[in-house]
Amino acid sequence: MKQHGIRLLPDGSCIFRVWAPEKEKLQLHLYAPEDRLVDMKRVGDGFFETLIRDIGPGARYKYVIEGGEEYPDPASRWQPEGVHGCSAIPGDLSFIWEDAAWKGIPPENWVMYELHVGTFTPEGTFEAIIPRLKDLHDTGINVIELMPVAQFPGTRNWGYDGAYPFAVQHSYGGPEGLKKLVNACHKAGIAVVLDVVYNHLGPEGNYLGKFGPYFTAQYHTPWGDAINYDGAWGDVVKEFFVENLVYWLEDFHIDGLRLDAVHMIFDNSAQNFWLRMSEEKSNLETRTGHMRYLIAESDLNSPRVLQPVLTGGYNFDMQWLDDFHHALYVLLDPAGKSRYEDFGSVYQLAKAYKDGFVHSGEFVKFRKRRHGSSSAAIDGDRFIVFNQNHDQVGNRPLGERLCMLVNFERLQLAAAAIMLSPYIPMLFMGEEYCDQSPFFYFVSHSDKKLIEAVREGRRKEFAAFKGEGTPPDAQAEETFLRSRLDWSKRTKGTHHLMLQWHQALIRLRRKHPVLLSFSKSDIQVSVVNNHIVSLLRQTPDGRSHLFIVLNFSDKPHLVEVPGFCPVWSGLLDSGDSPWREGRAEGRRDPHPETVAGADNFEIGGLSVVVYEGLSA
Amino acid sequence: MKQHGIRLLPDGSCIFRVWAPEKEKLQLHLYAPEDRLVDMKRVGDGFFETLIRDIGPGARYKYVIEGGEEYPDPASRWQPEGVHGCSAIPGDLSFIWEDAAWKGIPPENWVMYELHVGTFTPEGTFEAIIPRLKDLHDTGINVIELMPVAQFPGTRNWGYDGAYPFAVQHSYGGPEGLKKLVNACHKAGIAVVLDVVYNHLGPEGNYLGKFGPYFTAQYHTPWGDAINYDGAWGDVVKEFFVENLVYWLEDFHIDGLRLDAVHMIFDNSAQNFWLRMSEEKSNLETRTGHMRYLIAESDLNSPRVLQPVLTGGYNFDMQWLDDFHHALYVLLDPAGKSRYEDFGSVYQLAKAYKDGFVHSGEFVKFRKRRHGSSSAAIDGDRFIVFNQNHDQVGNRPLGERLCMLVNFERLQLAAAAIMLSPYIPMLFMGEEYCDQSPFFYFVSHSDKKLIEAVREGRRKEFAAFKGEGTPPDAQAEETFLRSRLDWSKRTKGTHHLMLQWHQALIRLRRKHPVLLSFSKSDIQVSVVNNHIVSLLRQTPDGRSHLFIVLNFSDKPHLVEVPGFCPVWSGLLDSGDSPWREGRAEGRRDPHPETVAGADNFEIGGLSVVVYEGLSA
Repeated sequence: MKQHGIRLLPDGSCIFRVWAPEKEKLQLHLYAPEDRLVDMKRVGDGFFETLIRDIGPGARYKYVIEGGEEYPDPASRWQPEGVHGCSAIPGDLSFIWEDAAWKGIPPENWVMYELHVGTFTPEGTFEAIIPRLKDLHDTGINVIELMPVAQFPGTRNWGYDGAYPFAVQHSYGGPEGLKKLVNACHKAGIAVVLDVVYNHLGPEGNYLGKFGPYFTAQYHTPWGDAINYDGAWGDVVKEFFVENLVYWLEDFHIDGLRLDAVHMIFDNSAQNFWLRMSEEKSNLETRTGHMRYLIAESDLNSPRVLQPVLTGGYNFDMQWLDDFHHALYVLLDPAGKSRYEDFGSVYQLAKAYKDGFVHSGEFVKFRKRRHGSSSAAIDGDRFIVFNQNHDQVGNRPLGERLCMLVNFERLQLAAAAIMLSPYIPMLFMGEEYCDQSPFFYFVSHSDKKLIEAVREGRRKEFAAFKGEGTPPDAQAEETFLRSRLDWSKRTKGTHHLMLQWHQALIRLRRKHPVLLSFSKSDIQVSVVNNHIVSLLRQTPDGRSHLFIVLNFSDKPHLVEVPGFCPVWSGLLDSGDSPWREGRAEGRRDPHPETVAGADNFEIGGLSVVVYEGLSA
Repeated sequence: MKQHGIRLLPDGSCIFRVWAPEKEKLQLHLYAPEDRLVDMKRVGDGFFETLIRDIGPGARYKYVIEGGEEYPDPASRWQPEGVHGCSAIPGDLSFIWEDAAWKGIPPENWVMYELHVGTFTPEGTFEAIIPRLKDLHDTGINVIELMPVAQFPGTRNWGYDGAYPFAVQHSYGGPEGLKKLVNACHKAGIAVVLDVVYNHLGPEGNYLGKFGPYFTAQYHTPWGDAINYDGAWGDVVKEFFVENLVYWLEDFHIDGLRLDAVHMIFDNSAQNFWLRMSEEKSNLETRTGHMRYLIAESDLNSPRVLQPVLTGGYNFDMQWLDDFHHALYVLLDPAGKSRYEDFGSVYQLAKAYKDGFVHSGEFVKFRKRRHGSSSAAIDGDRFIVFNQNHDQVGNRPLGERLCMLVNFERLQLAAAAIMLSPYIPMLFMGEEYCDQSPFFYFVSHSDKKLIEAVREGRRKEFAAFKGEGTPPDAQAEETFLRSRLDWSKRTKGTHHLMLQWHQALIRLRRKHPVLLSFSKSDIQVSVVNNHIVSLLRQTPDGRSHLFIVLNFSDKPHLVEVPGFCPVWSGLLDSGDSPWREGRAEGRRDPHPETVAGADNFEIGGLSVVVYEGLSA
């Protein structure tokens, strides 16, 4: 199905192919290996083509539109000089993969880790990540989710300003670097999910509109014109992005894609984006014999996102469960209420555990309307939960991670809340050891007006959160540098304790069969005393039980264990060694090792404890 | 569920209720029976209310917004002085219905008739239609579809500029007039479908935006901002229009609604317009024990429009099949190709008969993209077909009906093509007797800029069809007056012959069981000689067969009748008496009365013949 971009042939020639349906004339301007101008041929469906002999990696080019201005290739695979420079033939096309035995990891075993390539290491490259994969794997992480890597303006960006959907960010190491990373991950037993943006393109260096109607004014997004999936010529635009999706999964061996803000992808046509996405993903799986996963970021609270296309759905395998974060965060940080005015009750966290969406049709003040529909019928392995991600951290003026806002005990609760949930957990890089670097919003545009617009935009955005401080300049390099992780912290003091807590939680999650059941019928959720959430979970055969108690109050409370098991034996206790050392004086008491069924036990303030039910 | 507008109570008082979610203060300004200002009370969900005692029909009012400007009621049921004047309590609330026995007509028996109230009679009122119902019924018509009657600016308009969704056009006779008409229709055995517009409001006299966020810039329509179904406060806007839908069906005993341009209704929310529409329609049917029908005008060529909400559909009972018109029209009028560049082959008409949508994924030049998805699995009683409707006639510069463009023989073919189809047929008023009045586009705005904008818009629209003439001034009263039907023509000459042809076709359609099967498995469509479409239709039990042959060429051709019946006997022949008198010399020869199975017979140029298969 490959339609867009270059195609290297075995004989050392290359077909250059570009879509410009309403242009009369296109020329290939080769810059290297030699400077020359080549007329292209119209080949139908709005495409232009030309074949160049004896050409290979390193060749640089742009396209000249109707004898006038020239621009990089919309389907460029490599922009070695950035968004405004030449497109180039990359060297990764002959990459030798070593992951033939890799067959992926089933989602029920996933422990995810969101990672920003630029700030994860001092080098800020794909290759620099490789030496840390063992540490991640030892922690229990087996899926990394890379924030977007499509070529963005400059060298510092979260990735959502990507302007070349097929080009891998040059400053991260380009396409070859990404392949090396994925290859190393697979060898280390780690799957790779990539964040891709199909709802808009970045504001700088985005020349797609010069070639064809990639955008439409029919719909709006907060980031400008929407992508034209259903207007005139929209069917080819749709194939461009569907091809992009297959490109990552097939050429880069990526295991899954996280689609940014799917609620801003508008396609009213009879054969819409979701249908084509599903068809091509399914074709790919058949071709490669290897499952891939599509994950939605959705603001819709609609079960439709996870339903099959034939029943009107978008057919995602999973979606981020933002409501879980909001419900949890306001219980951990009293200041959270000002950010999430519609959250604040422990019953909402209980609903998030039981049903998924907290807002399933209720009036939501923030939205000024009723919002959502129930997800109670959807099993837990379709939702991804987190205590924080790049958005919640980075969209604070001072970019504080959760560990910079709440104490050790609360962080223990936070980690347990996701790891013991019937959902797929995801950490934000550094969370596992309480990295103390902020994660700021940063850019490195070159357009002065745009830089000022970003500054102004951030100022406005934070006007409502004055108490949280004044953000640093997003354009300043310093802002980016300060956002880098300090990996050395992992082995020190409370940082190390927190890492061990995460390891213990993940070990338990992996080991205990009850924690691998994602069926809604295998969990009972209760609220005790307005501050405590208890989860009674079981295996599908009803033979094995866990009783998980999370106390969000700083006071101890009595809790009764279910009577149907005569004895409950402790499996995990936040007050236990070694991590009890990180807790405040007075909250270090361990809980009873066993409790008789129907008996009360006292759960300490800001504590979590897991009991396993034993038969007589 | 009634939330919006006035509510008269049995004790002679009236609750005035209006929605203005972001306003601090609203007042009711009563003009009659006495002039006074009444403060309203906020009652939750953004509504304001007040109760006035001793008030009834004829009372006039507006609402004062925050002590400043005043406007009519967005949910006004009567605007006796037009769109800018006072809202009023109408007299229809005590209307006495006489249609208790009415249970509607099943769709398989429908023969529809689109009707514009303003030009159907010299009076241009609902009541003036009543004396003509018997004529319509005698013709075989049993469903009239009224073009929109919601209050529009001035007194001359197609209805798509309605500014008060709940108010019945004052110049047509207001709400009381409409009830009288529906009551009379039901007594005459005629169902009433009403055209409603839920994708935009008219450009003049539309003050809804003064009260609340009824509109959104998130989506565009060709007629301005889209209606806000999914943005902030959009859930109440959704209920406003769903309430409107129930209002017509329940308060006015309307049998079905035709929703204008459903592809311009955008609702991305989890509980969307289609879900709420379906729920309330179903509630209403349960309440009244009487089926109602929702008909879509859709530009999507998507089966989704007709699928249930639970499988991602819009849940319409039927939709207009525009492709059928286009495919047929270009066969009848060689000039049609310039209007419908993607049509022109008799195979497309054959596909329309067999599958429904002609464009089911093909590239469509007019749209510059692939369009549609197959409807082959959808039965015929879900589609409405026509040779012309207000759009195809009125959107020609000179507003010519089909009978002003093509000869008698072709009109016979056109009528037969829809009446013998496995779809629900619809005539455009006057079509049955070849009325010779044009149907122009006309308006009667009072805003000068708007009048000029309409003129300019029409000029631009017709620039591509210069050969078709220069349109008259849409604003001129003369343009409206010239669009009135001349009912007296029905009984005269070829007009009367055409009426008889329609009657014969409808009689056959009603009488013959084969023509009442809408299953796709009961029809075989063939193309003969590139000019002839033959339909071999049968009853579901396979016992009874009709062979229908439509020759779009002006030359005779040989056609073989299917051999599985030994004898085929003629049931209808376009060259037969009396209508043969209307045909040109040389095309008056009747076809053989019987044909032996597998034998050839010659079908005359521009002829249609129907044979019934007989067993030995």
